[in-house]
Amino acid sequence: MSFKDDESCGCEGHAPPVNLEVDPIPSIVNQLTEGFISKRWSSHIEPVPIPTKKEVVDLVLQAQRVMFPGYFSSTMLNPSGLEYHLGHNMTILYRNLIRQLSSAIRHDCFRHNQPCSDCNARSHELAGRFIRELPKIRETLEMDIQATLDGDPAARNADEVIFSYPGFFAVFVYRLAHILFTLDIPILPRILSEYAYHRTAIDIHPGADIGESFFIDHGAGVVVGETCVIGNRVRLYQGVTLGALSLPKGAGKKLRDTKRHPTIEDDVIVYASAIILGGDTVVGARSIVGGNVWLTKSIGPDTKVLVKQPELVYGGKDE
Amino acid sequence: MSFKDDESCGCEGHAPPVNLEVDPIPSIVNQLTEGFISKRWSSHIEPVPIPTKKEVVDLVLQAQRVMFPGYFSSTMLNPSGLEYHLGHNMTILYRNLIRQLSSAIRHDCFRHNQPCSDCNARSHELAGRFIRELPKIRETLEMDIQATLDGDPAARNADEVIFSYPGFFAVFVYRLAHILFTLDIPILPRILSEYAYHRTAIDIHPGADIGESFFIDHGAGVVVGETCVIGNRVRLYQGVTLGALSLPKGAGKKLRDTKRHPTIEDDVIVYASAIILGGDTVVGARSIVGGNVWLTKSIGPDTKVLVKQPELVYGGKDE
Amino acid sequence: MSFKDDESCGCEGHAPPVNLEVDPIPSIVNQLTEGFISKRWSSHIEPVPIPTKKEVVDLVLQAQRVMFPGYFSSTMLNPSGLEYHLGHNMTILYRNLIRQLSSAIRHDCFRHNQPCSDCNARSHELAGRFIRELPKIRETLEMDIQATLDGDPAARNADEVIFSYPGFFAVFVYRLAHILFTLDIPILPRILSEYAYHRTAIDIHPGADIGESFFIDHGAGVVVGETCVIGNRVRLYQGVTLGALSLPKGAGKKLRDTKRHPTIEDDVIVYASAIILGGDTVVGARSIVGGNVWLTKSIGPDTKVLVKQPELVYGGKDE
Repeated sequence: MSFKDDESCGCEGHAPPVNLEVDPIPSIVNQLTEGFISKRWSSHIEPVPIPTKKEVVDLVLQAQRVMFPGYFSSTMLNPSGLEYHLGHNMTILYRNLIRQLSSAIRHDCFRHNQPCSDCNARSHELAGRFIRELPKIRETLEMDIQATLDGDPAARNADEVIFSYPGFFAVFVYRLAHILFTLDIPILPRILSEYAYHRTAIDIHPGADIGESFFIDHGAGVVVGETCVIGNRVRLYQGVTLGALSLPKGAGKKLRDTKRHPTIEDDVIVYASAIILGGDTVVGARSIVGGNVWLTKSIGPDTKVLVKQPELVYGGKDE
Repeated sequence: MSFKDDESCGCEGHAPPVNLEVDPIPSIVNQLTEGFISKRWSSHIEPVPIPTKKEVVDLVLQAQRVMFPGYFSSTMLNPSGLEYHLGHNMTILYRNLIRQLSSAIRHDCFRHNQPCSDCNARSHELAGRFIRELPKIRETLEMDIQATLDGDPAARNADEVIFSYPGFFAVFVYRLAHILFTLDIPILPRILSEYAYHRTAIDIHPGADIGESFFIDHGAGVVVGETCVIGNRVRLYQGVTLGALSLPKGAGKKLRDTKRHPTIEDDVIVYASAIILGGDTVVGARSIVGGNVWLTKSIGPDTKVLVKQPELVYGGKDE
Repeated sequence: MSFKDDESCGCEGHAPPVNLEVDPIPSIVNQLTEGFISKRWSSHIEPVPIPTKKEVVDLVLQAQRVMFPGYFSSTMLNPSGLEYHLGHNMTILYRNLIRQLSSAIRHDCFRHNQPCSDCNARSHELAGRFIRELPKIRETLEMDIQATLDGDPAARNADEVIFSYPGFFAVFVYRLAHILFTLDIPILPRILSEYAYHRTAIDIHPGADIGESFFIDHGAGVVVGETCVIGNRVRLYQGVTLGALSLPKGAGKKLRDTKRHPTIEDDVIVYASAIILGGDTVVGARSIVGGNVWLTKSIGPDTKVLVKQPELVYGGKDE
């Protein structure tokens, strides 16, 4: 037993036929059309393409196949076939990237009323620069995997890290998005970071500058702001914010492009829910920041800062 | 080289054939069947349809195409084609909505043993009322975009907000779900809010009443309870809870439909991880609530409330 | 108007043809190939299959169809067809599980250089043991649904819980993953728990031991560690961490398999953002742990522990 769109269920009488004379759609479409054509509302009605979110997100899977061969496709790999696998998937990645770069650049030129005389050539060049970074990024990712195994007793082997660690996934996507950010590509880096956030609840801005052997455990609620600088072998736990000091209303434009987020030097550990704020705040090398610490001033190297936990009040349940 | 389901890999001897006489499925299916038929366990075994999650979630994409033309489809739009695009996608949205509304209403009638004599007509009427709200909602969303640009130095333009701000996505879905909630539609609003939560880790109950120019930054862990009232130009950061006071066991039924969540007046900013609880708690207009503040009493307008940050304890690393 | 991959937009002159002589792909593929073949980087280039993430995740949908008939498929069910529905979907679940188990076991044997003589038979046996647990798990899930309805005034009925409660979804996936964990299956339990985390921002390790009538409200940021023991009728709110005490660098291997996470006895409530740490920490039965409490020592039964909320500092806005 099944119903069609315009059919009644057995439990009701015949529904009155829908009065087509009052079809609500045309008048609403007119209102919306007017709102967009008048430019009162943001839209993308332009003779240039815009990156499609789905294809930008596909870049992540394509990069996973290239960077972690054998894990993210169902075909089995043997050593003699590896080069074919990598070449094939790298070509797919490269072509998709050119397409998205080209859309992003053309859209940006159009928005800024700049004549763009070389969008096509630039997107090829930038895609080439991106993929040339991949071997180095892969080297770094292996250090991130090792940092995870070193830091988490529950991590049994590299397979688990690659398959199932949200922190590692967020860092992987960050490392890709960061290349695009440093190449000054519009829109794409943020679409990538939003995708990583969607999957992990970890929010790393692609503009942040993060060293090697980086490990985020659990990770929900972690925020790493755009102008953070993070050294090597740093470890963050869930809920850590590396953010900006409180922003006055209208801060949006004024503070753009100033360093608003902290610097975390080598070998620092920041435990759960610690909040470190401000562009001048530096956490010195090898320091430890305890859970729930609220820090808006610098601390030197080799320092341990804990919050004096607020007093607990014990009582019977009926008090 | 590849394996089929029932094939051995090369590294093992021939596996013993599976003993079909002990196929475990029939006895388990019997146990489950009995549990559902006896009504000991929740199920939906009824001669009326139930909304399908996938199609309810499709409503979001369909609404994105109508509300942000050019961003969420790969076809390019020019001004002369805009009306066709909007009309076409509005029709798809409208029809899907009628189908889901009809399922939701029939299912609800059936559950309550109410004869429903006009499910079909009602779902048409309600879908019409929903889409008639869309131009006004679009106006509000533009203000939400502007609030994001004003509030976040890292937000470069409307494209980034529309494509990649989790807070904006959560607010967009909330505004749709809230219309359905006020139309008293069962189930659909919660499926929508769950989907937004899934994508953003931001949990806004569709029953909350939220004003214009609303901005949530980062957002993971934000909770906005069912009976919250939020004014215009309010800004929330990650981890903020606008929740209920602690609930005794069995509170479920007793407290339903009472105001359990706070009121936040116009132009308030609430920084990261602040927790504001209780139905009588009011944060007065233009006030600022600092990070980590725990608030269960009202504060007047133009007030700044900070938590006296707990003392930090510094030490060398080996202490 | 549309562009192809290698076409220029109207706003630019003819782009210079891409110089095929400097195709960047081959040299990068060579570098990557070398990195994997030399085993400097983790890869899965082996003559045995590895579980595919997509199919492991499909297990969840297949289990939903079996455990909540009528909710997660578009076909309507009537009592006489229920057994067919359950039998059909159980068969799909069972076969997929055998396939994934077989991949997981073969991959693990290969990694450890163990000859595996009975992978195929073992995967059939383990899949059988898994599905035999399902009726009991279903009974437990009904108690989890009831605990949600009892604990949350906003929960209107079982439909809402099954369709849209992130906490319930996370607990559902945990209960499946936990069976696989206790059967000592590699990789699969973690892929499942990562998927639940992806959807809910709730991180329950499949190794945790959790009793009946468990309810997590909202849930973003909840962390339940591998060696937690949780009794019956326990309720957790968003941001609660049941974690390990701070870990020295290199803790990974040393602490594996020791009890590092707390014990929560029957009927305990833990409010938002409380952090309870350490393998020896016990929260006694019927106790209440207030929001933001930081607990590293045991508390007895029937205790209420609140944090003395830090002093609030009020001021005018311009101070």
